[in-house]
Amino acid sequence: MLFDTIRAIRWENDHLYLLDQRRLPQERHTLECTQVTQVAEAITQMVVRGAPAIGITAAYGVVIAARMRYAQAGKPWKTAIAQDIDLLARTRPTAVNLFWALEHMRELIAHLPEDQDPVAALLHLARQLHSDDITANQHMGRLGAELITAGAIILTHCNTGSLATGGFGTALGVIRQAYADHKIAKLFADETRPWLQGSRLTAWELVQDNIPVTLIAEGAAAFLMQQQQVQWVIVGADRITANGDVANKIGTYGLAVLARQHGVKFMVVAPTSTLDMSLPEGAAIPIETRGESELLQLGPQRLAPAGVAAWNPVFDVTPAGLIDAIVTERGVVTQPDRQKLLAMMQNSVN
Amino acid sequence: MLFDTIRAIRWENDHLYLLDQRRLPQERHTLECTQVTQVAEAITQMVVRGAPAIGITAAYGVVIAARMRYAQAGKPWKTAIAQDIDLLARTRPTAVNLFWALEHMRELIAHLPEDQDPVAALLHLARQLHSDDITANQHMGRLGAELITAGAIILTHCNTGSLATGGFGTALGVIRQAYADHKIAKLFADETRPWLQGSRLTAWELVQDNIPVTLIAEGAAAFLMQQQQVQWVIVGADRITANGDVANKIGTYGLAVLARQHGVKFMVVAPTSTLDMSLPEGAAIPIETRGESELLQLGPQRLAPAGVAAWNPVFDVTPAGLIDAIVTERGVVTQPDRQKLLAMMQNSVN
Repeated sequence: MLFDTIRAIRWENDHLYLLDQRRLPQERHTLECTQVTQVAEAITQMVVRGAPAIGITAAYGVVIAARMRYAQAGKPWKTAIAQDIDLLARTRPTAVNLFWALEHMRELIAHLPEDQDPVAALLHLARQLHSDDITANQHMGRLGAELITAGAIILTHCNTGSLATGGFGTALGVIRQAYADHKIAKLFADETRPWLQGSRLTAWELVQDNIPVTLIAEGAAAFLMQQQQVQWVIVGADRITANGDVANKIGTYGLAVLARQHGVKFMVVAPTSTLDMSLPEGAAIPIETRGESELLQLGPQRLAPAGVAAWNPVFDVTPAGLIDAIVTERGVVTQPDRQKLLAMMQNSVN
Repeated sequence: MLFDTIRAIRWENDHLYLLDQRRLPQERHTLECTQVTQVAEAITQMVVRGAPAIGITAAYGVVIAARMRYAQAGKPWKTAIAQDIDLLARTRPTAVNLFWALEHMRELIAHLPEDQDPVAALLHLARQLHSDDITANQHMGRLGAELITAGAIILTHCNTGSLATGGFGTALGVIRQAYADHKIAKLFADETRPWLQGSRLTAWELVQDNIPVTLIAEGAAAFLMQQQQVQWVIVGADRITANGDVANKIGTYGLAVLARQHGVKFMVVAPTSTLDMSLPEGAAIPIETRGESELLQLGPQRLAPAGVAAWNPVFDVTPAGLIDAIVTERGVVTQPDRQKLLAMMQNSVN
């Protein structure tokens, strides 16, 4: 498809290949994962990141684990693989897609026989989760783009594109589609400190796909909204609770407050694998805090002096009341609340 | 004084020495300026930055210019120096302290004889502006600290300390004083992209002075306010208009919106040399936009891919209505407006 050339996760010749997102945009380096421990490490160390991409990677991780466990003679693979799945589940706490994908793999494992090679069946499911994610993103892209009127100025946050998903992207999928539909007058992306997903990843994938983008510092977002007719802030999500609260990359909540203050609409784009109907509200979401060095250094280069501390929460929670639309592959929920989300999930459109 | 050991601008043995703030915290390198063109370049290139520090540096720049122009036989120095003052005035557009300091120097020049060496008189005035700034900061420190109740959690932005002023600092002067008064439970500073004044400069000077600080990404400020009992956001100013609007480092306006939204008070600390009573409101302030490379690179290291644009406004304007207190050396103005600021300026307390 036009404006959609990047894939970060590939399963080829029985191997999992991950585009190493720590090295972008300087280097396009692919990591081959042959052990489940490598897959877990790749998620923890952010070789791969983005809620849907983490889920898909973990699903392939279960395939790799099953291959190894089944090959180990004398050990019941279904018992042995439980620890591998637990290892994958411990990699990152906030994005629910990880647990969602592992739950799908666990359910299939429960139905598989102990005495037959499980790899083909598990791989089939992992591939299905992967391709379903791309299909969902393309569908969300169309649904979200319909909400945008031509000539829009748009601001996005973090990276929610092909790098963060099976492909095409969530928020960036909507932007891809809206750009293809000639609806975007100007696209801004904030650099997204501390990991610079905006300037390193979003900018990189948009340059690859010839979609013009202008980077700003997070601190310039309020001034941008004050100065220009920004129409939408469009973001992804790492977990959406039953009432429509949204955990997403740190900085999202502040953008939502600023958007409301400036009459800018706020759109969250995420597949239903991101919905966690078991949690009543955002306060219940575990928020990951990562190491100080992500803020105090840039790669090997020290930014701050020795002796200074840092607080590095990498997600925040935006209350449903600040969100104008949640776009999923099952439809668009405007002014989201518990009833509307429940109704959407109970309609088995998909 | 306790917690106040740094000076960024020094005049010694007839020379101007500037601590090169581009190289902090890695290197403590001092630049000697012997030509007015060097002084202008040092301001433009941000060897020295911070509204009051720029003003003081420019005043010393006029001294250096006068020495050179008077030494040039056969040329009336008062006519010749006008272009040097113009050069200094063109270095940066937003902070009004630059124009304020140059105006003071110009006025003195108008009163000096053509046929006598002007250097001693001009140096005396430049030194006076410098020491007055430190005195004003110490006084503002006490006034501002009185507004803070013990046990406060405070967030500051950019660098407003000894590095940004003649010494002691504006917002950071209030924080120095409040810390000396044992009023601060916890101090947060945001890193202040793109130039990292927070993590490079504020953190460095606080480490030197043994004041504990915790850095956050700008994007974490809203989450911080949502999670913790932040009492005050305290910032400096580059220009305050007659109605109390405040131009300050990009990101300030967003913090002010977030502070109001979370019931956090917002304090601006600036000497009256920052007040521009000639401008009715903030919309009239020229806002400097600097090069894209400040955002797209970090030193020589490229952050973003080639082919991507950036928008790098380095100041924004916070409307007076979002400000709880403006602290100057002439007193504290709460809920600032035109009448209150005018009344303060007409009271010649100082």
